[in-house]
Amino acid sequence: MTKQRKAASGEERLIERYFRPLARHPGALGLIDDAAAITPPTGCDLVLTADGIVAGVHFFPGDPPDTIARKALRVNLSDLAAKGALPLGFLLTLALPEEVGAKWLAPFARGLGADADAYGCPLLGGDTVRTPGPVTISVAAFGAVRRGKMVRRAGAKPGHHVVVTGTVGDAALGVLLRRGDASGKRWGLTRRAQDHLEARYLLPQPRTAIADLIGAHASAAMDVSDGLAGDLAKLCRASNVTAEIEIARVPLSDAAHAALGRDPALIETILTGGDDYEIVATVPARKVEMLRRAAAAMRVPVREIGKLVAGQGGARFLGRDGKPLAFARPSFSHF
Amino acid sequence: MTKQRKAASGEERLIERYFRPLARHPGALGLIDDAAAITPPTGCDLVLTADGIVAGVHFFPGDPPDTIARKALRVNLSDLAAKGALPLGFLLTLALPEEVGAKWLAPFARGLGADADAYGCPLLGGDTVRTPGPVTISVAAFGAVRRGKMVRRAGAKPGHHVVVTGTVGDAALGVLLRRGDASGKRWGLTRRAQDHLEARYLLPQPRTAIADLIGAHASAAMDVSDGLAGDLAKLCRASNVTAEIEIARVPLSDAAHAALGRDPALIETILTGGDDYEIVATVPARKVEMLRRAAAAMRVPVREIGKLVAGQGGARFLGRDGKPLAFARPSFSHF
Repeated sequence: MTKQRKAASGEERLIERYFRPLARHPGALGLIDDAAAITPPTGCDLVLTADGIVAGVHFFPGDPPDTIARKALRVNLSDLAAKGALPLGFLLTLALPEEVGAKWLAPFARGLGADADAYGCPLLGGDTVRTPGPVTISVAAFGAVRRGKMVRRAGAKPGHHVVVTGTVGDAALGVLLRRGDASGKRWGLTRRAQDHLEARYLLPQPRTAIADLIGAHASAAMDVSDGLAGDLAKLCRASNVTAEIEIARVPLSDAAHAALGRDPALIETILTGGDDYEIVATVPARKVEMLRRAAAAMRVPVREIGKLVAGQGGARFLGRDGKPLAFARPSFSHF
Repeated sequence: MTKQRKAASGEERLIERYFRPLARHPGALGLIDDAAAITPPTGCDLVLTADGIVAGVHFFPGDPPDTIARKALRVNLSDLAAKGALPLGFLLTLALPEEVGAKWLAPFARGLGADADAYGCPLLGGDTVRTPGPVTISVAAFGAVRRGKMVRRAGAKPGHHVVVTGTVGDAALGVLLRRGDASGKRWGLTRRAQDHLEARYLLPQPRTAIADLIGAHASAAMDVSDGLAGDLAKLCRASNVTAEIEIARVPLSDAAHAALGRDPALIETILTGGDDYEIVATVPARKVEMLRRAAAAMRVPVREIGKLVAGQGGARFLGRDGKPLAFARPSFSHF
């Protein structure tokens, strides 16, 4: 118990200075009340998700504060999008060590506010506490989806196709680059390719733009946060189906392609590394092309990568020889 | 970045073992999806609140894990009750250091489940992450209140009476006792009185039972978490009124009375110490007795302690001589 007191409340001042300017939604009550109040949209269910990130575990302590804030929010927006939900707002619980001051908080709040605006997901409330440990950021985000229509992990059927948005594996390669072990040189990457991979790690692109399309077309979906292989396996277990994925069809960025060309063993990092924040979804055959076209119109690439077959859940990633790849560690876990 | 991998997901196992048994609400989807879905009650607004607690800051690392869990949830339930809202459920983000294992997690989950049941506030989802720092628990809780009827800090009017539930100052004295500096002996307290004060610190009693009554009768309310003096001052500033409180009417437990009798300077600790988790509310004169009786029927004592007068916010605590007490530090703050 290292409680500390000051004449006026430092917490109030901190909130007033950095976070009140973000809380323009009327339900946030300017962050001067104990709770926020929102009127849920008629005919909708609420979709609720929470994700925490910790300095030294989920981000490098030296990462830019504005991208840390944006990532903390975006990983939650990614969950909402994968469930077919549009964002309503979020609560932020911020545990700060003593040494964190204006130099860190100002860009953190600025980044958070920029994304809250960009994604239409206002800050509604939260809590700010001291910690003797590392910066710890917990976001609880709320979205709305038509009643009974949240897209689940369960619901995929044999015969449905498997699709994924964007490109896979970039962020996992980006983390290796940021660790500074000269991977970039070994992979023969241009500076631009390296920047692309690191940016994909620093700043996920939640697929909020196609949340409605996922809701309309997907039989099951989830966001890819712990690696495509492991996450798709989780979806398949929940749906009691098996996925057969053609590795050659998994969408890769030019940078990931280049690295993989130099070191074919990177395929495991790419498929299991995590931090992609793309959406993997299963879609009835007749809807695949419709989803692909409509998503393309929203500038979100959607690629079909395989199909579902009957049988006790799991995901098989097949090489060009048709044989399944065996992963040493199919999914990322902190435990 | 101290990422760590294992063949199967340890996080999944941890959730399955300790938290899935708690997630019996259908919207929690057994905690195997990315998000929860709930249908908001018709004609209601959602009330959203989040509070984080950190080992070594908000609780002693050696406190019983079941009471830590219950306190983490109860401080949020206390906020909902003060807003007139009935709980719908909560999300839990748990940051755990490596050394925390079954011996801690099992009673933690048991305590959490017991309170989720007792208060009708089911676990709906969340996140479990590793931290190199202390145990950090973030709860985001959701409640429902009749549309437009959330009780705010703003809304109090001159002439309204100020009431408070339960007793004030016990937890602040309990913390001093738990610090083990022999305060108990100095205050001449029986073991039973000491136990009472420590229990009030360990396990707040959220006033969920009278949430509806607060909603029906209070013009403004908040929960007392950072000390009655400072919190009431915040409410008064939000409402642009001034409270005049008679210190002699502030409800104290027998234990707090006994301690105060031995050491009159403790009045500052009692009025500013925090962790009370009672409700302070303002009520039109004609409704005070109705609220008091109805709350008594729910076994929640409600005591009138003063009145509001016009004028630029603040709270004055008047001694028997009618003179206001000057506090060195009117409100608790971690910053």
